[in-house]
Amino acid sequence: MLEPDPLRPAEKTIDWPGASDASLIFIGEIRTPWTSRAACPRRGRHDGPLCRIDVNPIWAEALTGVEADSQLEIFYWLHRSRRDVVLQSPRHDGTTRGTFALRSPLRPNPIGTSVVVVERIDGTILHVRGLDCLDHTPLIDIKPYRSAFTPSAPETPGDRQIGDT
Amino acid sequence: MLEPDPLRPAEKTIDWPGASDASLIFIGEIRTPWTSRAACPRRGRHDGPLCRIDVNPIWAEALTGVEADSQLEIFYWLHRSRRDVVLQSPRHDGTTRGTFALRSPLRPNPIGTSVVVVERIDGTILHVRGLDCLDHTPLIDIKPYRSAFTPSAPETPGDRQIGDT
Repeated sequence: MLEPDPLRPAEKTIDWPGASDASLIFIGEIRTPWTSRAACPRRGRHDGPLCRIDVNPIWAEALTGVEADSQLEIFYWLHRSRRDVVLQSPRHDGTTRGTFALRSPLRPNPIGTSVVVVERIDGTILHVRGLDCLDHTPLIDIKPYRSAFTPSAPETPGDRQIGDT
Repeated sequence: MLEPDPLRPAEKTIDWPGASDASLIFIGEIRTPWTSRAACPRRGRHDGPLCRIDVNPIWAEALTGVEADSQLEIFYWLHRSRRDVVLQSPRHDGTTRGTFALRSPLRPNPIGTSVVVVERIDGTILHVRGLDCLDHTPLIDIKPYRSAFTPSAPETPGDRQIGDT
């Protein structure tokens, strides 16, 4: 599970606690042009290369209506990432920050997300732009994208609950 | 793992494939005022109630520098959600859509995300607004928030690679 990547200066790990608190199921596979981490873009671009999301056909019906969304948020499992790093020096500029202050793929639960634009859907295969992950990255979820600036959904009772903790 | 929620009209499940392809580790716990799903807001509001994110102290150093980000993206495990639903009718308006066309908590890998504003950090406890989940929801990740409209990071070789698949 942990890839023995060398650490950079000032990087630090903890002893991996080894807990397995919940299980993920891979629901498909992502196909991109990038076969090494060095080649991956730091962040996908909507004018980047066309990539493919192959959804496992057992989930075909869960795609019903997905074509109505021009942008989707894709969740994937960064299967090549070590998970025990708490301090990272990713920028080659001498600065070190905590894992939770970075969007680095090295994290306790290496889940990546990208917002993609959908070019075409053929059955359970989505052709999209905007990904940044390695070829063969396992797919874990697809959601319609709602930016933080999208108007909120209609209120429910909890929205206005007083209860500062 | 699957909570026996009743299905609504036209909703559909598949036989749960039972695979466990990767393991999550819970890195803390979220404290909110909401103790039933009916009370949870559909989406957190930045003027909503103050909530607390209790990070497990073994990850303390991973929070280094997190105070520089005014908005964080919080990832959590929707531990009360059933995972086998492919068609859902959540809106009480007679429409049915696929799970991947909805941001419903019912999904094969029930990972929720919220963008929160940070009010205060006390050691490994973050006081934030913008969450929408149940009290005691397990925490799985914290990342600085980068909206889709944030300028991209500097280019890497992969950004401009020609290689449509």
